[in-house]
Amino acid sequence: MADRTGTYERDGALDVKGTLGIAGVGLIGGSIAAAVRSRRLAARIIGFGRSKERLDAARQAGLIDEIATGYDAARQIDLFVCCLPVDRIADSVREAAGHMKPGSLITDAGSAKASICEAIGPAPAPGVRFVGSHPLAGSERQGFEHADADLFAGRTCIVTPTGTADAPAARDAAIFWNQLGSRVVEMSPDEHDEVLARTSHLPHVVSAAVAAGIRAGEEQYAAGGFRDVTRVAGGDPGLWSSILLANRDAMRGEIARHIDRCRAFATALEEADGDELCRLLAQSKARRDAFAESFK
Amino acid sequence: MADRTGTYERDGALDVKGTLGIAGVGLIGGSIAAAVRSRRLAARIIGFGRSKERLDAARQAGLIDEIATGYDAARQIDLFVCCLPVDRIADSVREAAGHMKPGSLITDAGSAKASICEAIGPAPAPGVRFVGSHPLAGSERQGFEHADADLFAGRTCIVTPTGTADAPAARDAAIFWNQLGSRVVEMSPDEHDEVLARTSHLPHVVSAAVAAGIRAGEEQYAAGGFRDVTRVAGGDPGLWSSILLANRDAMRGEIARHIDRCRAFATALEEADGDELCRLLAQSKARRDAFAESFK
Repeated sequence: MADRTGTYERDGALDVKGTLGIAGVGLIGGSIAAAVRSRRLAARIIGFGRSKERLDAARQAGLIDEIATGYDAARQIDLFVCCLPVDRIADSVREAAGHMKPGSLITDAGSAKASICEAIGPAPAPGVRFVGSHPLAGSERQGFEHADADLFAGRTCIVTPTGTADAPAARDAAIFWNQLGSRVVEMSPDEHDEVLARTSHLPHVVSAAVAAGIRAGEEQYAAGGFRDVTRVAGGDPGLWSSILLANRDAMRGEIARHIDRCRAFATALEEADGDELCRLLAQSKARRDAFAESFK
Repeated sequence: MADRTGTYERDGALDVKGTLGIAGVGLIGGSIAAAVRSRRLAARIIGFGRSKERLDAARQAGLIDEIATGYDAARQIDLFVCCLPVDRIADSVREAAGHMKPGSLITDAGSAKASICEAIGPAPAPGVRFVGSHPLAGSERQGFEHADADLFAGRTCIVTPTGTADAPAARDAAIFWNQLGSRVVEMSPDEHDEVLARTSHLPHVVSAAVAAGIRAGEEQYAAGGFRDVTRVAGGDPGLWSSILLANRDAMRGEIARHIDRCRAFATALEEADGDELCRLLAQSKARRDAFAESFK
């Protein structure tokens, strides 16, 4: 991964010169709108979605200028960022691309990349470029009401070109995320999915498994540790089943490895091996401490 | 469990009339001292421990009045609360009991109960009563420097009598915890250990397994979900290996059940069964939401 990993400096500038399109004006899409507005990166923002009512509310909140429930208005767009749930990204991008101008750019904000990038390809319409993105920022809160112009500031965004032909598109997408304050790292869609299986998708499955493990009425005997380990299990089941399904190949391997690690604890307990338990816990603590240091 | 579960009202009062002893003046012991002081529940507090330096510092911080590195001073104590790590509680209590007055009471704050209660018994010395306690409060922070007089306020404390003969001791211990602001629930040591395996000890093992799952350099691709799921994995390996060992019987069953729940996710992913994934995630979310409601 190292040879293709690069961090872009914030000296470039993708002048949207006109119109940014955002599909799915929720927490992520709404925060992109707020970030672009506060940094004056676009003259106009069009919000695309299925619910005219929600789009109208986002417009009234000042996040977007115009709304569209179909993709005809995509012909006006210079940059399209698809923030829909992962199971709707490919269809949305392909449909929008059919209306977009040659030279325009499309990216997304989905938490799984290989299946989406493969379904879309680097040129979903003549002269229209696509490259995948995944901003590592978010919250268990949903809806544009929690939009935050600084949600991406200081965070990492992964951009996933599928080959050298995508390099210009990846560069332009990287500059866009840089302008929102993110540090950008490039990796292939497959690498992204393997890394995110370990850093995000497995933690979600495991959190859900722990939450399901307590019995009715035992909530009162849980405290801060349980609260933190299970926080993400409170997330939307539909959104997360789509993410897990989109990354099912990498996830099956990671669940198997997690089971092996749990078995190592069970064996140490069975053998009442305090040294081995300490060793396992110290190894986990070292990794966790390294993360805490980098997450500051 | 229900028939023996009771909540004590805060109308009783255990007048320590004289001297409270605390072994292990760390976060928990220090917070008990602070809580007793601020509520004027004891005339005097003696801190017991191995490190004269740390005890002196706790005295200078105003948490305790006197310090003792041996148990001779236990003869002055009316109530002794042992806040040492679980693997040192039984020895400490038995030694202190040998010096204590008939009619005095001992309890502890250990996170595992069956092995400790069995090793100590309800009468560790003639006329000296012991009953186990586990206040469900804490923090990943350590040391009396983080002591908080309200750490136990509004929290649950589990008191674990081993039989009907312990009822008076359990009642007195319950009144003590009530006076610190806790709600008290009684259960047997075995019931305690099974419930805590699910609400605290399994979450710890699983958190450690997730933290160990990322590879060196991948910390930068982890965000808020990983941070929360792995927070407790930053805890002290020695303390936690003792807790897990002390509860090894219940833990082996809970790890096996956790593995089964992870396998259910793996099977749903293998079969690309979105409905089943949604069902599993919704079940976890319901349990987590119920917890969040009760933890407010």
